[in-house]
Amino acid sequence: MTYQKESFENLIERMETYLSEKRYVEARETIIDVEPVDIAFIMESLPEDTIPIVFRLLPKELAAEVFVELEADSQEDLIKGFSKSELKEVLDELYLDDAVDIIEEMPANVVRRILATADPETRTNINNILQYPEDSTGSIMTTEYIDLKITMTVEDALKKIRRVGQDMETINVMYVVDADRHLLGYVSIRTLLLADENDTMEELMDSAVISASTLDDQEETARKFEKYDFLTMPVVDKENRLVGIVTIDDALDVLVEETTEDIEKMAAITPSYKPYLNTGILETVKSRIPWLLLLMVSATFTGQIISSFEDALAAQTILTAYIPMLMDTGGNCGSQASVTVIRGISLNEITMKDLAKVIWKEMRVAVIVGAILAVCNFAKLMLVDKMLFHNPITISVAAVICLTLVFTVFAAKLVGCTLPILAKALGFDPAVMASPFITTIVDAISLLIYFQFAQLLLHL
Amino acid sequence: MTYQKESFENLIERMETYLSEKRYVEARETIIDVEPVDIAFIMESLPEDTIPIVFRLLPKELAAEVFVELEADSQEDLIKGFSKSELKEVLDELYLDDAVDIIEEMPANVVRRILATADPETRTNINNILQYPEDSTGSIMTTEYIDLKITMTVEDALKKIRRVGQDMETINVMYVVDADRHLLGYVSIRTLLLADENDTMEELMDSAVISASTLDDQEETARKFEKYDFLTMPVVDKENRLVGIVTIDDALDVLVEETTEDIEKMAAITPSYKPYLNTGILETVKSRIPWLLLLMVSATFTGQIISSFEDALAAQTILTAYIPMLMDTGGNCGSQASVTVIRGISLNEITMKDLAKVIWKEMRVAVIVGAILAVCNFAKLMLVDKMLFHNPITISVAAVICLTLVFTVFAAKLVGCTLPILAKALGFDPAVMASPFITTIVDAISLLIYFQFAQLLLHL
Repeated sequence: MTYQKESFENLIERMETYLSEKRYVEARETIIDVEPVDIAFIMESLPEDTIPIVFRLLPKELAAEVFVELEADSQEDLIKGFSKSELKEVLDELYLDDAVDIIEEMPANVVRRILATADPETRTNINNILQYPEDSTGSIMTTEYIDLKITMTVEDALKKIRRVGQDMETINVMYVVDADRHLLGYVSIRTLLLADENDTMEELMDSAVISASTLDDQEETARKFEKYDFLTMPVVDKENRLVGIVTIDDALDVLVEETTEDIEKMAAITPSYKPYLNTGILETVKSRIPWLLLLMVSATFTGQIISSFEDALAAQTILTAYIPMLMDTGGNCGSQASVTVIRGISLNEITMKDLAKVIWKEMRVAVIVGAILAVCNFAKLMLVDKMLFHNPITISVAAVICLTLVFTVFAAKLVGCTLPILAKALGFDPAVMASPFITTIVDAISLLIYFQFAQLLLHL
Repeated sequence: MTYQKESFENLIERMETYLSEKRYVEARETIIDVEPVDIAFIMESLPEDTIPIVFRLLPKELAAEVFVELEADSQEDLIKGFSKSELKEVLDELYLDDAVDIIEEMPANVVRRILATADPETRTNINNILQYPEDSTGSIMTTEYIDLKITMTVEDALKKIRRVGQDMETINVMYVVDADRHLLGYVSIRTLLLADENDTMEELMDSAVISASTLDDQEETARKFEKYDFLTMPVVDKENRLVGIVTIDDALDVLVEETTEDIEKMAAITPSYKPYLNTGILETVKSRIPWLLLLMVSATFTGQIISSFEDALAAQTILTAYIPMLMDTGGNCGSQASVTVIRGISLNEITMKDLAKVIWKEMRVAVIVGAILAVCNFAKLMLVDKMLFHNPITISVAAVICLTLVFTVFAAKLVGCTLPILAKALGFDPAVMASPFITTIVDAISLLIYFQFAQLLLHL
């Protein structure tokens, strides 16, 4: 029944055999029932010169769907090999938003060829979408949707859907507009099917429609899909005129992409949109080195702090042994707070006006966490480090370490929860403020606290 | 037109006035066109005792939709205040999967009351879903869907849809089954609308249907939605019999939840499903303290390493100043690699068989990154630290630091990319292996390398 039963390895092997023996009918049979995204995967796993062959074996609608799923490199190679009529055929089958996505990845000469081949209407629509800024809602919308005039009856509406529905990405929800295309409401296909033939859109539509604006940030729009459980969302211009729709599959892609971006930023990586294994070595280096350099240089502070307390350390060499533990614990506490807050900001659970609430909460958490860690560490210092490992630990030394722990945890939680919210309020990206950056600050603070307590309690 | 124009603060304020002055008609008018999730938010922002009042102002279908979006505490309070007939009314309006989600959050006595009130068929269905393990696909599916027999004509099918479609969560795609309910294929509402009245399901259906099994992991199923751009997916039992469907809104919730879980684990937090501001202080402490304790204790290793090289450090006190920089850089390099790989594993871009490829890639990245960092650091050591800050840095000391840097970066990248994949292969969660755990290992390695080079080059 379903091809899930056969492994990809098997499918790829069979395809290779068929293709090398030119048994094209069997090759076609093998993959014709496979999902487009999986056909694309199989094609990319086959020898490069067979990609155009397999592509031409597919029925044209399926071919277009597979084309969308291929890597940009393969798409480019295919386009370069297409005759003009082949290119036109593929373009005609593509959904407009997919065509735009592909064009955005292609070099200029290929783009010119695509635009020259597309029919004038498609070309205008593509150019319209291309003009919206990257990351805007306009850039992920499609202009292929069914709009219904407010005066239409159910019969009119169903007639229109039957006429133009074939080329639309979705017909679950249709938007109702007036003569000037102002968005008035929506009706679902379910409502239409269950209604009387003579009901009008005015009677049936729900006018509480939530729309996005073309210039809204794409992530903000995508989060609305998550919040409201929408399948599509209308996009309007400044005058509230309907200009396109966003579908949930594109919203989902945006969410996954933006989340990956957040995660990468939290790990001090400049975000890239490519899958890991497709990114070149130099590209990976480029996305990682700036932050490493910055953080390495900023560690100069911690170095200088240690240098300036050199005499204290020389007098009590045992203190050095606990620097890593204090710094790591501070870093971990800080990133626990910052990562939780950053995720909360992404999911719209935390905003600027919650700052005081967040700080108050983290302060209380910090006191309890700090106290527990200090007590456990004191026990460990006296029982394990002193008695088991015979480290020269006095009560005073243990007190210095544990007091530092309490204050470091407090400072780390405070810095960790505050910086992301402040960054957001100042218009910066909260994720960039995450772990490594906060670690550097917390490192310096914890060392300063450490040496203050050491001087105070150990009279160094 | 849309209520987006009025801010929530405004709406809440108006509601408070209306409610305190018992102007219920106006209160009802104010929120009746607001989206359910936003009504829920507004209700939670109002004084607690007004929640049941607002709830009873809503038409019953909308009331049920709002009920789903309320916090578990408010749901519980409402249920406790409901008369039996009120509870039944709400239950009848709920989609089955939402009812199950709510029941999972309620204490036992409330669950008994709900099950006693539900009609026998609903009760059986709820119990069926409740029996599936948490995190399984069965636990997020709904049994409210339209199935079409393979012998039906388009006319039969549309008749059935008009008859039962009102209570279904979705009618975009319907699944085709044989007399024994074996899943055979699917047809979309679009196909039905565009087809001839007398076509049968056998002629119209697409038999290349991808299904999930009730016991499949829910994240795996959710990732398929993302990969294949599905709106719904059929769920089958071991005999390939259709038992339910999963809809994309639930898949999206699973993706967001699992991603938050991953992010929290990477920051050494035990995952919780509650929004940050709704989590109690002690709960937050409990989710954070175990890892902090573990990591604090594991820092004993680094402490012992430093202790055992005490004499070397005493002879060259300047070496201590660079311990934080080396450890932080190692930690950052390690988490860059591990976070990238963990995200790749989550998105199914990286599997066990890519291990060699990943290692080979990270090794090459590490060599380049290490070399750049070492050269920059050497320049910084000689120009800034020595000439500007007058630190006692000789060429040999700088060499020790920079060589350590190169080897630390190499070790960090290697550990960072290998551990998550190995964890996955051994059935552990890759995210748990992330930054803090890897940091501890890398810290120890970098110190060992540091002191080896120091002994070798500085003859300590």
